[in-house]
Amino acid sequence: MAEKIVKVGLVGAGTIGKGVVDLYLRNGSAINNKVDFAVMMAKVADRDRDRLQGLDLEKEKLCTDASEILEDPDIDIVIELIGGIEPARSLIARAIENGKYVVTANKDLMARHGQELIRLARRNKVNIFYEASVGGGIPLIRPLKHSLVADRVSRVLGIVNGTTNYIFTRMDQDGLSLEDALSEAQRLGFAESDPTNDVEGLDAAYKLVIMANLAFGKKADFDQVHIEGIKGVTYEDISYAREIGYSVKLLAIGEDLPEGLALRVHPALVPLEHPLSSVLNELNAVFIESEAAKELMFYGPGAGAMPTAAAILSDVVEAARCIRFNVANGVVESELQETGFVPIGALEARFYLRYLVEDRAGVFASLANAFADEEVSLDMVIQKRRVGDLAEVVLVTHEAREDAFRRALEKVTDISAIKANPSIIRLLN
Amino acid sequence: MAEKIVKVGLVGAGTIGKGVVDLYLRNGSAINNKVDFAVMMAKVADRDRDRLQGLDLEKEKLCTDASEILEDPDIDIVIELIGGIEPARSLIARAIENGKYVVTANKDLMARHGQELIRLARRNKVNIFYEASVGGGIPLIRPLKHSLVADRVSRVLGIVNGTTNYIFTRMDQDGLSLEDALSEAQRLGFAESDPTNDVEGLDAAYKLVIMANLAFGKKADFDQVHIEGIKGVTYEDISYAREIGYSVKLLAIGEDLPEGLALRVHPALVPLEHPLSSVLNELNAVFIESEAAKELMFYGPGAGAMPTAAAILSDVVEAARCIRFNVANGVVESELQETGFVPIGALEARFYLRYLVEDRAGVFASLANAFADEEVSLDMVIQKRRVGDLAEVVLVTHEAREDAFRRALEKVTDISAIKANPSIIRLLN
Repeated sequence: MAEKIVKVGLVGAGTIGKGVVDLYLRNGSAINNKVDFAVMMAKVADRDRDRLQGLDLEKEKLCTDASEILEDPDIDIVIELIGGIEPARSLIARAIENGKYVVTANKDLMARHGQELIRLARRNKVNIFYEASVGGGIPLIRPLKHSLVADRVSRVLGIVNGTTNYIFTRMDQDGLSLEDALSEAQRLGFAESDPTNDVEGLDAAYKLVIMANLAFGKKADFDQVHIEGIKGVTYEDISYAREIGYSVKLLAIGEDLPEGLALRVHPALVPLEHPLSSVLNELNAVFIESEAAKELMFYGPGAGAMPTAAAILSDVVEAARCIRFNVANGVVESELQETGFVPIGALEARFYLRYLVEDRAGVFASLANAFADEEVSLDMVIQKRRVGDLAEVVLVTHEAREDAFRRALEKVTDISAIKANPSIIRLLN
Repeated sequence: MAEKIVKVGLVGAGTIGKGVVDLYLRNGSAINNKVDFAVMMAKVADRDRDRLQGLDLEKEKLCTDASEILEDPDIDIVIELIGGIEPARSLIARAIENGKYVVTANKDLMARHGQELIRLARRNKVNIFYEASVGGGIPLIRPLKHSLVADRVSRVLGIVNGTTNYIFTRMDQDGLSLEDALSEAQRLGFAESDPTNDVEGLDAAYKLVIMANLAFGKKADFDQVHIEGIKGVTYEDISYAREIGYSVKLLAIGEDLPEGLALRVHPALVPLEHPLSSVLNELNAVFIESEAAKELMFYGPGAGAMPTAAAILSDVVEAARCIRFNVANGVVESELQETGFVPIGALEARFYLRYLVEDRAGVFASLANAFADEEVSLDMVIQKRRVGDLAEVVLVTHEAREDAFRRALEKVTDISAIKANPSIIRLLN
């Protein structure tokens, strides 16, 4: 078979970009042996000359102006690795309009403008691939697109943020405070110097939107995701959770309910025997519940230059195959259905609470009455320890609607004997 | 876009075949909405009329002679679900020679004759898909083919037999003997009435060959797999393993070593903190170690009509896409490299042993000397309990070459104070 050479241009030579170039240099010939066409890294663009110097590529392949890639008719595939919304969005649109396939790891962009770019690609008979945008090196987008095509996914549960999973693991295993665990994660490179997106749950929410689109075939909306970060979780909570048989994880949860999609990111108590509980450190995993397969889990590195580079290059090969075989939009993603959304208040959950209360007669009765008034019943009440003059109490409710639980909570916090805002964590149901 | 109808014929209407028809009837229109072509279940063949009666299909679609499918020029895709080597092999060859794509769940056949059928398909410009042959409903073949194309896999560790995993889980959790756990598995439908292939490790070995071919791009040979079943493992072994921090799993292990492929199936002690340890009951998982991604795991149902049917229909959609877009052998599997094989004797491992010995002076010294003579050093020696006049001793060795260990073992079993063959289980290293 005559060998076709597929030419790739890469925009953005940061850590991931350098990883892609390095992995291509190491395994490119092995890749070309596996497929019957040749993939060539033809050009790399970055505004920063120093970054370009760090690449082990011939000088004539390096440029500081992305237009040299976008306007080069010989380039078949553009890898976008600059991140963020603009100029990434315009750059990708221009590449598509110039007839190029696009590979991206940009989760913010795919969560907010993915559908518009996919449609633009379809009109231009090309496609956009984004395996690395969720779960880093874990094959996830491709299985969701292809392997589950005959199944119906009802729920997606993801540990999709490595930073927060690392923090919870260190708190659990080494008794660190959240602050100390975060500092350690930063020192080891698992957390960025500005960890806001990770710690506040935004990173996980972007990934949830991308997964929900594919898993349910319905248009998930980032603004409809209920997002809570990890800041309210203390070492004590993690330690008490373990005593009653749970680990604490930041979960991205998507559910396809009769009333619409329910999308949320929050810390959750996960039963120790659930496979997600054994996902430790910076690792990621996505657990899928479906009609036919019942339960699937995909586990691996959610970040890192090499794992992400492997995912990006697998997309490059898929794009190259489409070009080689003239498949145009071979892997059509169907138009997503419009859908309603279920607010968090309408969902049912069990709740874990930890309070500090004055240790005197009648306090517990007031608490219990406040919950009973809203028909929230208690499954477990444990007095843990004394903190100065106060008693620390852990409660776990039975299943209750969140809005009823919140109403009860307002009454409870009015009780003068309660001395601090409670820690509240939902249990995975 | 004009809608093309892709016609599917299914041969073999047993449990899985019925599952495929049922899932197609339930989700077929949803599948057709996701892709821009229509998949039609056009004909089902089975020699057994009763099985055909059980299907919810029009009478004119049912036939007792597979030739009606194989020779029908309107049929684009043949699903083979009769299992075993012959007549499945001839039937698939005929389908391919008649220009049809083939989807199969036949692990024995793909392990023994997969390469010959893949080559035949290539010559006939079609392809053969076999996602359901390993790991049932777990997306595994497709990720190995596509997602890891830029990575180098060094080791594959699979819990790929649900029956034996169920048995070990019941022994561990409920203290059952192997025999009682097997009976329970049979009663619940997790084990067949003749469980030989499962219990003796053959089923896992077939799957290992298929995975090794794809993971390493080298020609794995079923006859080169070292196979040990689960029969030698007792409740005591599982219980002692847990005490020292391990679970017991039947593992299919493939390694790409400098000297060649090392392929083996045997029970192994898996550290409790390893993700494979939390794979319980009839569930399966495959853990992959690679250069770029480092560690990946795919977890889910390894068998069952519905999960397997979902995998088969995902292959049907992939085949239909190739037909729709005229991709011919779009998903070329590269020719596998010829390779050498590393015999089990040349591998290093740590070994767990459980002995019954006469409880008198000098016995342990004899044991220790026999090992020391072969330079096998002991990491752990625990006297567990008295059994009548005898003492039960558990040993764990340091890493040792298997042939040296075996030589030591022969000397040990010559010692007159040893009263029964030891239980021997390798530790996962």
